[in-house]
Amino acid sequence: MDPASQLFPVVSLPDDKFHDHCGVFAVFGHPEASKLTYLGLYALQHRGQESAGIAVSDGETLTCYKQMGHIAEIFTEPVLASLKGPYAIGHTRYSTAGDTVLKNAQPLMVNCQKGQVALGHNGNIVNAPAIRRDLENRGDIFQTTSDTEVILHHFARSKHHGIPESLADALDRVEGAYSIVALFKDSIYGIRDPRGFRPLTLGKIDGAYVLSSETCAFDLINAQPIRDIEPGEMVILDKRGVTSLHFAPPVKPAQCIFEHVYFARPDSVVFGRSVQVSREELGRYLAREHPVEADMVVPVPDSGVPAALGFAEESGIPMKMALIRNHYIGRTFIEPSQAIRDFGVRLKLNPVRSLLEGKRVVLVDDSIIRGTTSRKLVRIVRECGAREVHMRISCPPTISPCYYGIDTPTRKELIAATHSVEEIRQYIGADTLGYLSLDSLRKAVGDTAGRFCSACYTASYPTVVQEPLLALRQRD
Amino acid sequence: MDPASQLFPVVSLPDDKFHDHCGVFAVFGHPEASKLTYLGLYALQHRGQESAGIAVSDGETLTCYKQMGHIAEIFTEPVLASLKGPYAIGHTRYSTAGDTVLKNAQPLMVNCQKGQVALGHNGNIVNAPAIRRDLENRGDIFQTTSDTEVILHHFARSKHHGIPESLADALDRVEGAYSIVALFKDSIYGIRDPRGFRPLTLGKIDGAYVLSSETCAFDLINAQPIRDIEPGEMVILDKRGVTSLHFAPPVKPAQCIFEHVYFARPDSVVFGRSVQVSREELGRYLAREHPVEADMVVPVPDSGVPAALGFAEESGIPMKMALIRNHYIGRTFIEPSQAIRDFGVRLKLNPVRSLLEGKRVVLVDDSIIRGTTSRKLVRIVRECGAREVHMRISCPPTISPCYYGIDTPTRKELIAATHSVEEIRQYIGADTLGYLSLDSLRKAVGDTAGRFCSACYTASYPTVVQEPLLALRQRD
Amino acid sequence: MDPASQLFPVVSLPDDKFHDHCGVFAVFGHPEASKLTYLGLYALQHRGQESAGIAVSDGETLTCYKQMGHIAEIFTEPVLASLKGPYAIGHTRYSTAGDTVLKNAQPLMVNCQKGQVALGHNGNIVNAPAIRRDLENRGDIFQTTSDTEVILHHFARSKHHGIPESLADALDRVEGAYSIVALFKDSIYGIRDPRGFRPLTLGKIDGAYVLSSETCAFDLINAQPIRDIEPGEMVILDKRGVTSLHFAPPVKPAQCIFEHVYFARPDSVVFGRSVQVSREELGRYLAREHPVEADMVVPVPDSGVPAALGFAEESGIPMKMALIRNHYIGRTFIEPSQAIRDFGVRLKLNPVRSLLEGKRVVLVDDSIIRGTTSRKLVRIVRECGAREVHMRISCPPTISPCYYGIDTPTRKELIAATHSVEEIRQYIGADTLGYLSLDSLRKAVGDTAGRFCSACYTASYPTVVQEPLLALRQRD
Amino acid sequence: MDPASQLFPVVSLPDDKFHDHCGVFAVFGHPEASKLTYLGLYALQHRGQESAGIAVSDGETLTCYKQMGHIAEIFTEPVLASLKGPYAIGHTRYSTAGDTVLKNAQPLMVNCQKGQVALGHNGNIVNAPAIRRDLENRGDIFQTTSDTEVILHHFARSKHHGIPESLADALDRVEGAYSIVALFKDSIYGIRDPRGFRPLTLGKIDGAYVLSSETCAFDLINAQPIRDIEPGEMVILDKRGVTSLHFAPPVKPAQCIFEHVYFARPDSVVFGRSVQVSREELGRYLAREHPVEADMVVPVPDSGVPAALGFAEESGIPMKMALIRNHYIGRTFIEPSQAIRDFGVRLKLNPVRSLLEGKRVVLVDDSIIRGTTSRKLVRIVRECGAREVHMRISCPPTISPCYYGIDTPTRKELIAATHSVEEIRQYIGADTLGYLSLDSLRKAVGDTAGRFCSACYTASYPTVVQEPLLALRQRD
Repeated sequence: MDPASQLFPVVSLPDDKFHDHCGVFAVFGHPEASKLTYLGLYALQHRGQESAGIAVSDGETLTCYKQMGHIAEIFTEPVLASLKGPYAIGHTRYSTAGDTVLKNAQPLMVNCQKGQVALGHNGNIVNAPAIRRDLENRGDIFQTTSDTEVILHHFARSKHHGIPESLADALDRVEGAYSIVALFKDSIYGIRDPRGFRPLTLGKIDGAYVLSSETCAFDLINAQPIRDIEPGEMVILDKRGVTSLHFAPPVKPAQCIFEHVYFARPDSVVFGRSVQVSREELGRYLAREHPVEADMVVPVPDSGVPAALGFAEESGIPMKMALIRNHYIGRTFIEPSQAIRDFGVRLKLNPVRSLLEGKRVVLVDDSIIRGTTSRKLVRIVRECGAREVHMRISCPPTISPCYYGIDTPTRKELIAATHSVEEIRQYIGADTLGYLSLDSLRKAVGDTAGRFCSACYTASYPTVVQEPLLALRQRD
Repeated sequence: MDPASQLFPVVSLPDDKFHDHCGVFAVFGHPEASKLTYLGLYALQHRGQESAGIAVSDGETLTCYKQMGHIAEIFTEPVLASLKGPYAIGHTRYSTAGDTVLKNAQPLMVNCQKGQVALGHNGNIVNAPAIRRDLENRGDIFQTTSDTEVILHHFARSKHHGIPESLADALDRVEGAYSIVALFKDSIYGIRDPRGFRPLTLGKIDGAYVLSSETCAFDLINAQPIRDIEPGEMVILDKRGVTSLHFAPPVKPAQCIFEHVYFARPDSVVFGRSVQVSREELGRYLAREHPVEADMVVPVPDSGVPAALGFAEESGIPMKMALIRNHYIGRTFIEPSQAIRDFGVRLKLNPVRSLLEGKRVVLVDDSIIRGTTSRKLVRIVRECGAREVHMRISCPPTISPCYYGIDTPTRKELIAATHSVEEIRQYIGADTLGYLSLDSLRKAVGDTAGRFCSACYTASYPTVVQEPLLALRQRD
Repeated sequence: MDPASQLFPVVSLPDDKFHDHCGVFAVFGHPEASKLTYLGLYALQHRGQESAGIAVSDGETLTCYKQMGHIAEIFTEPVLASLKGPYAIGHTRYSTAGDTVLKNAQPLMVNCQKGQVALGHNGNIVNAPAIRRDLENRGDIFQTTSDTEVILHHFARSKHHGIPESLADALDRVEGAYSIVALFKDSIYGIRDPRGFRPLTLGKIDGAYVLSSETCAFDLINAQPIRDIEPGEMVILDKRGVTSLHFAPPVKPAQCIFEHVYFARPDSVVFGRSVQVSREELGRYLAREHPVEADMVVPVPDSGVPAALGFAEESGIPMKMALIRNHYIGRTFIEPSQAIRDFGVRLKLNPVRSLLEGKRVVLVDDSIIRGTTSRKLVRIVRECGAREVHMRISCPPTISPCYYGIDTPTRKELIAATHSVEEIRQYIGADTLGYLSLDSLRKAVGDTAGRFCSACYTASYPTVVQEPLLALRQRD
Repeated sequence: MDPASQLFPVVSLPDDKFHDHCGVFAVFGHPEASKLTYLGLYALQHRGQESAGIAVSDGETLTCYKQMGHIAEIFTEPVLASLKGPYAIGHTRYSTAGDTVLKNAQPLMVNCQKGQVALGHNGNIVNAPAIRRDLENRGDIFQTTSDTEVILHHFARSKHHGIPESLADALDRVEGAYSIVALFKDSIYGIRDPRGFRPLTLGKIDGAYVLSSETCAFDLINAQPIRDIEPGEMVILDKRGVTSLHFAPPVKPAQCIFEHVYFARPDSVVFGRSVQVSREELGRYLAREHPVEADMVVPVPDSGVPAALGFAEESGIPMKMALIRNHYIGRTFIEPSQAIRDFGVRLKLNPVRSLLEGKRVVLVDDSIIRGTTSRKLVRIVRECGAREVHMRISCPPTISPCYYGIDTPTRKELIAATHSVEEIRQYIGADTLGYLSLDSLRKAVGDTAGRFCSACYTASYPTVVQEPLLALRQRD
């Protein structure tokens, strides 16, 4: 636990959402590699804003700088100026509550017999606890609590001499989700796990290659997307150009469906499909599955807007921006001691009474996790005089935690894991509540071939999930 | 000029908008006056984010704390804890380029024969230069370059003994726009200039009174709006409750129409009317005045969204969120030395290619000031494959600077002051360009009685504007 | 009161000393005026470390930057780079407890009919409260609580047109101590009050002129001292060179004797005499007046060292560094909740047991103000096994507060104001206690002509001290 | 390399001294263990001020916080409040030029099969490069460039199960200097290498045990010293009290003689002897070995003061404080572009002209490393009019680098390694130059039994020094 994160009592903002753990970015062969990486991380900040790091190589030596905080605070002009070299990788990270520590910030940089390595990882190694126990029993020491460190241990002790073989050797031992960028003194590797849980895309800018979790980062720097790294593929960027290896036999893909539902930025193309297009489509299916007579469709901004647009279009009910989001929000809030009801929600969202008064309202949101924020929103909307409040959610009930790189509450905290839709409706106080079906969700994201993981809606996990992990999540 | 504001070269964000100068807030008679004021300022940050200050009184002594920066950075827990007393006023300020200095931050607090006074001012005194010259000639010294200081000088030297008389005396000498909150040891004054340029509203919370530039600040703290302070009214909050005085004979009101077009937060009720309602209405009138055959209506987020909604509703063309705003933007950006074309706009807005490709697009924005951002946006949208780009602006061409508390460029910089609509269309590269007419604008904001100032569209100013001011603006 | 100064509970360091309020510095006609001023302030930091400011003129416009904090924190490279122009003045300030506020930081910069002025002041205007009352009654407003502001008011309203006449006019109305540097757009004024309470010296560097409170600042930048500004003299630095005016008729000088006893840096020449030489001489006189049989002379470092050297030389008793000062001390300390006895003193000073054990010790210090620190020191020395502890103080008992720019406690807090020497001896627990006589003090600083103020030892003040001031000090 | 350390060009302060690398401190069994450790580190800051860290255990879990910076900046109230538990160790570190990086800050905390360990190390492992190469070849990864990490690797992979056996196992493989504090979940170990290069002392406070590099840290918190940890001893602090083990067979001790010459704080008792007493004795021997006719003995403050006192006492020549040290120095300095000669020295030391003028001066300093500062000082003293300048150094010529935890320049940079005393005299410009003989040095520190390492004066190292290390130092 990092003491610096506890300076003042704060009102925790009511962000009842799943969170992605990380975003990764890399640039190979550009004179301003660290600046482009900084901009790339900028565009990926929705994937993690608690810490960030950049490692560069000048062809001989690696330098790494990482800190807690936002990109713009961490990477000042002098810091960037000192990160010299044409090869760079970057990482931005969302920390879970008990773990806001600098030591787990990435890239993770080590020295070993294969030289210097820096590694940025998006995802989660599900068998990390067991591997770690084994390695510790053999005498290894661990300086972080991150699951990423086990990859580096196995890489370092691989009997192979070449980097790709050693990486493959290490990856052969791990199970789970990993989109990785790895920096060596004169090469960068882009790696995606055999199931392809998390996205990773290759692009090009001024003759240099770039790797990014999402294409929105390419747009910012005017880079052109080339193609997704394939599940089980390792792409090597070095002086010879791009080399592709498959380090694992093909298995059934399990791309994270929640990237389309909520995580990814709407302007990204993820798994070959525009996220914004998927989300509007979700709204259209939702309108068909759960039609309702109403006066207006109101999105819960910002993430609910595209589905609300689709819902409005399909239903013919006009969309109204009757909940206004305050974008000037800092990270700490000081509340009056006579606490204001629903204060946290009010900080972020304010209703427009004159629009809502006397109206039948369809509230469209992308998910309900614990239900607490939805409950407050329904109440706030009713207090403005809405006559009816119908909640529509653009995905199925979320019933199971994710073990593949998403920060989710434990099963017990997921309202849909323990309550029926009707019970949830009562809890949040809506007149009606409609969730999108899994079938429609798959259709909306274009998943005809069953290439997506939807374990958070089904509890059917694409990998073995080790006992300790399951126990941990359920016991809590 | 404040050296601290020049630490690093930064990319100035392309914010081609008018800016409001300030927001004010006050609490009379609440044990947590400073915390409520802090929250009120939080909600008013769109009216100015460069500096902020809070002054409190414990009934005897005034304490003031102000700094450059955002509310959440300035008012930490220990700072708020030290601002003790049941009476508080607050001010948040947008600084013009040449003037980001702490010495001009407000509230402005002074000692004089009438005791301690702290004053927060939203607006602009048009005859301040002349008054200041007179006062200097009489031997007065000025410690700020703010026009607000002249009010305090005249207040201090008024021959009257009472506070209201002295205030009236001072206000009698100034001409222009002022919504003022003034703190004395055991009273707070809320004042609105005779034409009522800028808003100021009275509300109530737990038996205490509050004043705010906009009602959205009331919503955050669960305060109830009572009524607007009237043009030419001075409201006194003290132990006897609320007393109202009219310090000036009635004149034709001149409420700022741009508050409804762009400034005010959409969830506020300003001049008695919901801003969001006005803005959707602007979009509807715009669709009627400038219809076009197209595939989608695309708002320039966030401010263009309500008018786009109205336009889409009226025209039947579906709205699409094809420009995505990045909300994780800090205040400084470091650009690669090989500058990226349209970098500043890209930082904030990213197009969704899959939505735009091959489509006829109606771009809806609230205003065009210099035209530079619109030009970049049209280009970016075209580069994504849009077949046609039709720009629609939800107000008339902006042809004259504002002298009433808005930060506007000089006349020469206003593209519409020197170019015809057709020339502007060519400059921004749109297929068609349509501005809303002044007549429709008036109707959309409900101005049947001619109570609004629309000088920025007409150059017809409701007050004498002194030569120096005019010269200054036009010479630049 | 400045909230920022109260962030954390701290152990106040036991600095039982008088404190000087300020140091001033100026450079006229040097391309790097602000950098030299920064260095000058660096050398003057013992005269005040709570806030500092520099104002520069480029020949047309004045720019001022001031902040709370230490010189090196305030004036970073970019801040200095922005303070452009060949004319600069600087000020460093020690704030009294109730007044650690930015608004009172200097230079104080204003606009008036005579143009822009920035003023840095070392000293105290004893009739400021009365003047201020008068000015307020005439309608003036005060934005600081500093006594310096009254000078600017009278300067601004002087009927004279010239700057020197107007300054003289203003100074004619004030009584007390003032060494002033004043910056105008193309000139700098150095002014010393008619009694010359505080020092101010003129020097030269590379053809430019410099003014400084003490010569140690000249040494740092390799400037050559020319001469002291005389009491009642106003020196004008402008393009014509140095012009000297006497703005007041000669009166009996009253140079602060405590500058030689404790305030000034030992390497400075103050009032024409080396401070270090004076202090050693104090020790010699002390040895003659209060001889004692002992094994070692131990200075209370650092300020007690020169007198201890003189004492040891005169007495033949060897000096030992048996109290070691810790120089790595920050500004805040966190004490264990089970408080450690004499913790504050221990933080700064640690005894060397092996030197002290079984010895008869003469402790030499420069002054006793409240007596609390001396008491702790005697106890600490005894706990190390010293057989006898003889305290020797290199000045007379301090019985009256200073009204001329020194931060002193109230009369009631001065132990010597209410206790006999024998009572003080008992309180601090020394075997014997000897104070230097006033007569010897005068001889040691070379004051044959009675040119020094010694009011803190005699309560005989060289000016009228207004009732309110006296009352204030005594009532507390 | 840490980018944050390069923010601005700075004048590097002319500190021509050897530097100790680190100080360590520990508290076992006190409710305020982290606060006491913070205070202990405070007192040890002369042993390293670039970074510091504290690790605590609550009996189950270890928490560690470390940062670049000074103690008082790093350990704020909330940070300390979060470091909960009765067992704590701390470390303060001086970084060599190329290595001011957070990742090398200590305590170094890891997880391994033996649980969590945090380790603070003062000294240097001379065979670390070879061990590291071996470990890397076996597949281990290194996350720091610190020599300390090799101890943890060997500890983790020891086949023994017990902590003491595993530690002994690890220490058996390393050669060199190490005074170590090691924290486990419910025990603390204090370890000193078999030659006892660096000090480590055990003490007691309120029933709790404390370990410290120097006794001055005990004094600050009112702890009582018990005894030194012996060379080759491992002291275990746990619930059973203090257990002592000898993990290595006795060898000839090699205590660092430079601790007495310069490193340690004068108020500490190091290797059983008062440092201040040693230093005065050095001055006496110096006066006997190199007598000179002169008017005054002038110490180079602060470290030259005790030897100057001894010199003055022995020679009968009076000591004068004719060089004044400025204690208000920050960490960065901005120099005018027209650089001032000897600027760096002037920032720290200022001569008192009136004392020096026309005088024959004996300058006493503790060491000459590169000679650059001495040269400047002699010049400055002569410029003040000194007639003769005689330099006396209280140790022998420094001819060889240290490999045991001291930051020394390479052999080539040591002026005495390549120049005769006469050549050095000419270089620094003194009239005469006298160094203390090694024989007298040994006598002065009471070394009758040859228990001290004096390799820096003799190049005769008590351990094998591996080729790479030697090569490294000499090549540079």
